[in-house]
Amino acid sequence: MPNVVIDFLEGRTIEQKREMAKRVTDAIVETLNCKPEAVQIIMHEVSKDQIANGGVLRCDKD
Amino acid sequence: MPNVVIDFLEGRTIEQKREMAKRVTDAIVETLNCKPEAVQIIMHEVSKDQIANGGVLRCDKD
Amino acid sequence: MPNVVIDFLEGRTIEQKREMAKRVTDAIVETLNCKPEAVQIIMHEVSKDQIANGGVLRCDKD
Amino acid sequence: MPNVVIDFLEGRTIEQKREMAKRVTDAIVETLNCKPEAVQIIMHEVSKDQIANGGVLRCDKD
Amino acid sequence: MPNVVIDFLEGRTIEQKREMAKRVTDAIVETLNCKPEAVQIIMHEVSKDQIANGGVLRCDKD
Amino acid sequence: MPNVVIDFLEGRTIEQKREMAKRVTDAIVETLNCKPEAVQIIMHEVSKDQIANGGVLRCDKD
Repeated sequence: MPNVVIDFLEGRTIEQKREMAKRVTDAIVETLNCKPEAVQIIMHEVSKDQIANGGVLRCDKD
Repeated sequence: MPNVVIDFLEGRTIEQKREMAKRVTDAIVETLNCKPEAVQIIMHEVSKDQIANGGVLRCDKD
Repeated sequence: MPNVVIDFLEGRTIEQKREMAKRVTDAIVETLNCKPEAVQIIMHEVSKDQIANGGVLRCDKD
Repeated sequence: MPNVVIDFLEGRTIEQKREMAKRVTDAIVETLNCKPEAVQIIMHEVSKDQIANGGVLRCDKD
Repeated sequence: MPNVVIDFLEGRTIEQKREMAKRVTDAIVETLNCKPEAVQIIMHEVSKDQIANGGVLRCDKD
Repeated sequence: MPNVVIDFLEGRTIEQKREMAKRVTDAIVETLNCKPEAVQIIMHEVSKDQIANGGVLRCDKD
């Protein structure tokens, strides 16, 4: 705790995920004033037919 | 916001997901009085060995 | 299952929540082809300083 | 309800998941004083590049 | 990780929550073969008008 | 999408939450290469008797 669950579109590289985990952890540590090892990040990578905004699937918007 | 996360058993067609996203968004817009584009739906499709009710895996109930 | 978690801004009436639960359940039953009693809806009502879009708290946008 | 979402590292056997579902359900039934069939467990199995602690991906710690 | 999010009806005592956390952690440690300190449990206590099964709010079923 | 749900201990100031939302959004935009307005952050603020690590409630560790 803090526990962070991030849902985002699949297709990012492991390097992007590595960098995102580092930067998000730093942001939380420096603003919520907690230790880095307290911050856990869980990533759910979803596909375009598993996301909808405004009632329309993402895959139908491209 | 509103943000909707729906966990359901894998195996539905994209047409079912398309229709579900539309109908759930309409239901939320018309009852919670918000704009369609404000509603986000994220779908987690899980398998029968990842769901348990009453302590029994779904795959053990079929 | 299907399990639905909806995060939305606090302040809706119980009547709105009652109607939303009914309409969302019907939408899921009729599109994902499952029984009404299988559908569970969990509501998280959050305040304007607990939501951010585009890096800005909702309470700072009003 | 109670609804349990467990995120854990992929790679466990179905036997482990079967046993975990049973034991967690029993633990909740006996402590929160509810019926077994009321307890739902949803499992999200994630990979080592989808988890980070202390800003470091799990796959970079091995 | 494993990360456990449990949504349940408000009104349980702190003693019940204490006992549940201990028993659920033991169940996960002994079945998923991980260390106790790796297991995190987050509890969301919701009210009867925030839960619906079969399209009906829990508060309307009592 | 990306959608971020952060559970953390209650008690932070609105200024901390404002700054955290800004910094986390920037971190995600710059690493996952998406637009700021696409990033949604939902905060769940929990109390010490709603969190457990290693089977022990946080309120029992202080």
